[in-house]
Amino acid sequence: MQGKPAEWSEHLVAAPPTEVDKDAYRAHTAAAAKGVAVVSAVQGRWDHAVPVTDYLSVSYDPPTMLVSLYSLSRIAEAVAASGRWGLSVLAAGQRGIAERLGEQGAPLDGLLGQTPHYRRAPGTPALIAGAISWFELRTVSTLEAATHTLFVGEVTAMGRATGFGASPLVRFQSGYLRVR
Amino acid sequence: MQGKPAEWSEHLVAAPPTEVDKDAYRAHTAAAAKGVAVVSAVQGRWDHAVPVTDYLSVSYDPPTMLVSLYSLSRIAEAVAASGRWGLSVLAAGQRGIAERLGEQGAPLDGLLGQTPHYRRAPGTPALIAGAISWFELRTVSTLEAATHTLFVGEVTAMGRATGFGASPLVRFQSGYLRVR
Repeated sequence: MQGKPAEWSEHLVAAPPTEVDKDAYRAHTAAAAKGVAVVSAVQGRWDHAVPVTDYLSVSYDPPTMLVSLYSLSRIAEAVAASGRWGLSVLAAGQRGIAERLGEQGAPLDGLLGQTPHYRRAPGTPALIAGAISWFELRTVSTLEAATHTLFVGEVTAMGRATGFGASPLVRFQSGYLRVR
Repeated sequence: MQGKPAEWSEHLVAAPPTEVDKDAYRAHTAAAAKGVAVVSAVQGRWDHAVPVTDYLSVSYDPPTMLVSLYSLSRIAEAVAASGRWGLSVLAAGQRGIAERLGEQGAPLDGLLGQTPHYRRAPGTPALIAGAISWFELRTVSTLEAATHTLFVGEVTAMGRATGFGASPLVRFQSGYLRVR
């Protein structure tokens, strides 16, 4: 074992965690860079679409992705009910879309009115125009984890919605990463 | 529904997916920016440590994270066996660490010999010095998904290992994102 490195800080989490522990966790995870995407699903006559950073690629055989959604959110309910969802990976220039769709209590009526989008067929999830890449998925398993539900989905279709060479939109600390 | 956007491409996935489908998926997911971290675990007398991009924060109540590991890998076996793992979020200047630990077939003997690290107590996971943030976790649930195992862990300790203001190391396309 080596000595304690310079600038080392350490915070132990109590069981159960205190409010201080939760705040510390939020601050520490903000130090991870995360690409921004929009998760979308159709429930009844409504489009649901929210910005997310907590998604990942699970496997390419078969193509499989995962998204973590707050279990009590409308988007989690919509994804659970329909079993189909879209994931649009945003480009750096689409920060306004993330901010608009991320507003608390955004009304479902007209939610995507100002956001250019496309869907492959009536009733399928809206996909964001200009996204670096997009995926359509079918849920194959779910796992409840703390306050969130993990939706694991197999990719049924995918594509690009912008030219090659676009930079990604990336969250970092309490803002966005400046990329070049 | 709006018309098909400019520069729209579309690839449908067959069931079961073909090699062409898998290649297309790899190309499309490469267009998502992903912060790089190192997952570590101790098994017997050996440290295991590999770079990962497929991890995320699940919840802050309690502080909970997830990492997706190839089920047949040594690191998945080590995490499964020990039930405890570390996650060190790398800074932009730590690209060499990611590349060294990411080499195929890197021998376990001396794996971290060239990588400054620290552990909180004998037998606990190695944490990378100079990381933007680090977490120690205890596995609370797992889910098999396609070729991978999802490990969900509760955070037992966390901290920083560098000064404020460090930029993150971010994968994008087949290289690293240039940040400023």
